[in-house]
Amino acid sequence: MKVERKGIVYLVGAGPGDPGLFTLRGVECLRRADVVVYDRLVSPRILAHAPTSAEFIYVGKASSAHTLSQEGINRLLADQAAQGKVVVRLKGGDLFVFGRGGEEALYLHERGIDFEVVPGVTSAVAVPAYAGIPVTHRDLTSSLAIVTGHERPDKGESSIRWDKLATGAGTLVFLMGIENLHSIVANLVLHGRSAGTPCALIRWGTLPGQHVVTGTLADIEEKAREAGVTPPGIIVVGEVVSLRPRLAWFERRPLFGRRVVVTRARSQASNLTSLLEELGAEVLEVPTIEVVPVVDMSALDRELSRLGQYDWVLFTSVNGVELFFERLLACGGDVRDLHGAALGAIGPATAEALRRRGLRVEVIPEEYRAEGMLRALGGRVRPGQR
Amino acid sequence: MKVERKGIVYLVGAGPGDPGLFTLRGVECLRRADVVVYDRLVSPRILAHAPTSAEFIYVGKASSAHTLSQEGINRLLADQAAQGKVVVRLKGGDLFVFGRGGEEALYLHERGIDFEVVPGVTSAVAVPAYAGIPVTHRDLTSSLAIVTGHERPDKGESSIRWDKLATGAGTLVFLMGIENLHSIVANLVLHGRSAGTPCALIRWGTLPGQHVVTGTLADIEEKAREAGVTPPGIIVVGEVVSLRPRLAWFERRPLFGRRVVVTRARSQASNLTSLLEELGAEVLEVPTIEVVPVVDMSALDRELSRLGQYDWVLFTSVNGVELFFERLLACGGDVRDLHGAALGAIGPATAEALRRRGLRVEVIPEEYRAEGMLRALGGRVRPGQR
Repeated sequence: MKVERKGIVYLVGAGPGDPGLFTLRGVECLRRADVVVYDRLVSPRILAHAPTSAEFIYVGKASSAHTLSQEGINRLLADQAAQGKVVVRLKGGDLFVFGRGGEEALYLHERGIDFEVVPGVTSAVAVPAYAGIPVTHRDLTSSLAIVTGHERPDKGESSIRWDKLATGAGTLVFLMGIENLHSIVANLVLHGRSAGTPCALIRWGTLPGQHVVTGTLADIEEKAREAGVTPPGIIVVGEVVSLRPRLAWFERRPLFGRRVVVTRARSQASNLTSLLEELGAEVLEVPTIEVVPVVDMSALDRELSRLGQYDWVLFTSVNGVELFFERLLACGGDVRDLHGAALGAIGPATAEALRRRGLRVEVIPEEYRAEGMLRALGGRVRPGQR
Repeated sequence: MKVERKGIVYLVGAGPGDPGLFTLRGVECLRRADVVVYDRLVSPRILAHAPTSAEFIYVGKASSAHTLSQEGINRLLADQAAQGKVVVRLKGGDLFVFGRGGEEALYLHERGIDFEVVPGVTSAVAVPAYAGIPVTHRDLTSSLAIVTGHERPDKGESSIRWDKLATGAGTLVFLMGIENLHSIVANLVLHGRSAGTPCALIRWGTLPGQHVVTGTLADIEEKAREAGVTPPGIIVVGEVVSLRPRLAWFERRPLFGRRVVVTRARSQASNLTSLLEELGAEVLEVPTIEVVPVVDMSALDRELSRLGQYDWVLFTSVNGVELFFERLLACGGDVRDLHGAALGAIGPATAEALRRRGLRVEVIPEEYRAEGMLRALGGRVRPGQR
């Protein structure tokens, strides 16, 4: 028996980026989705929890032509649910922390559409945490303010009470604030926050490409320029930033900053992938046996187009070798794009398939299994090596 | 092959209460735990992700004698990990939002113990969201402050800058603030926050027993007294509270506030349970076939001791009936504790087992399956009925 129900919209926070920070309830909602309406910054790994039969509608704010205004998104959600569908609205972070979830919920309420809210792990807390910055600490602060960095305080009247906010909370987190870094810093100092206050900029927080720049309000702009920091990103201001040198656990994992492609079918790859990720590597699964949903294809194509940036490519089956190269060609790349990467093969047959294509394999494990590969790799990949 | 590793401590946020708001990464960490060090307010359903072979150590701050000081907790975590164990430190909400995770991480760093942080869904955002209050809204606020409510601002010098904070952020959330409600309200008004500002108190947020009281700064203390609100709980102050009447989705689900016991074995119960929960019911699974980990026994005992508060008790097998009563007696209860509850049986044999104990069954579904039960129940349980 299927319980008869009207359409419904689940307003689901996707978390800060790391697909491991998605919630169980979020997975549950995606599994029953007929339609998934998602933004950029939502990981393909999170989208993969939805059935492949679901319709995926991208409404992100990037340069793509396929984007919608907020009013358009509201209407889309309501229209789809009015047709009796289960709609999942998926957005990075938490939808109620500057995610416009409130507007979407009000719109649905006005039209009599059922909705539920699934809060996400907010980037305002988790991104600093992955950078080794606890947003509160008993000895350093008893309050935390989260502020939208989108507002341009130098244009027109600001709704931010800078005179109060600058010194009103021990820790200040500005979401999406990097494009307004200059005016944010200027306003804080103008309104009494000490220029010596520690400050951090975090890009790609919680992801393998996480990049953190620290300084003080006095020099953070210069440091941002030197490091070439561009939006999007988060700004953290407060004494808690000074804890980072001791607490930066995420960037200290042995394979942090390494990229690895795993070609094994997804069902077999998860063990190898999770072991590699546990050590801090960025893993791209290129499943060559299971059906790949359309949303994942674009992610794969994008990765293949930056293959030159990978340090290791691991092949875990002969099929994997064949299909990897087939796709590489289809995307306009070729074998030479592997020039900067070392190669691994799960066993002699896979290595032979590579050899037939003129490629020498650097690593074949003694055991022809994922775990053997990991062990063989462990001895060769060192932090700092590129 | 098992990857050889030193001990490690995972500092894991358990989320606000609803076990569905736990993260996938949190589940992963618990699955490999040798030791779980947990506080009160952590759901037994979350603890159940750990293997039953794990050691569970309760260090909550309740009246129990088995609690530890923060220094004691720090030492416990370090000592266990130093023995090579995988230790999961599990605490409600997010450990870095007034959860003392920063102190624990620093202690581990000083002792050279590896640690990782798994942020949780913070109560400061999710509890208001379940009460229909988005902590931000474009038209109403561009900032959110989260403040510890533990501090007693009337005793000694406060580290809270009330003069700035009161009007510095559009939305203010005080965690664990209900015992200091009087001084919080007084300080806000004294420092310029309008007495007409909407305000909400939320107890048992995100859980089936969620209780919300709303008012303004002028009358919230009186309303709290009238409603008998006691700690712990969260205070939300700001115009966003005015959206609650339109957005209170959680309390509007058809079985919200109903309690149901499901005696079916856990492996079979999950479907019925999740359908009931989807409709808003509080479900207690009393698995009678699977082995129950020790942590769950105490939860069961607690529930059996408040059996009188249940509206429905559903029996899904003859075994379930036998074992339910066996345990009820073992906990010092007896059959009379069912006085306020209606009874359901999955089929005639189960109903007969109840009849042998002198109990009349109110509902037997036409189909002898969980889904049939749900359908039969759907027609009888109405919002507002008790």
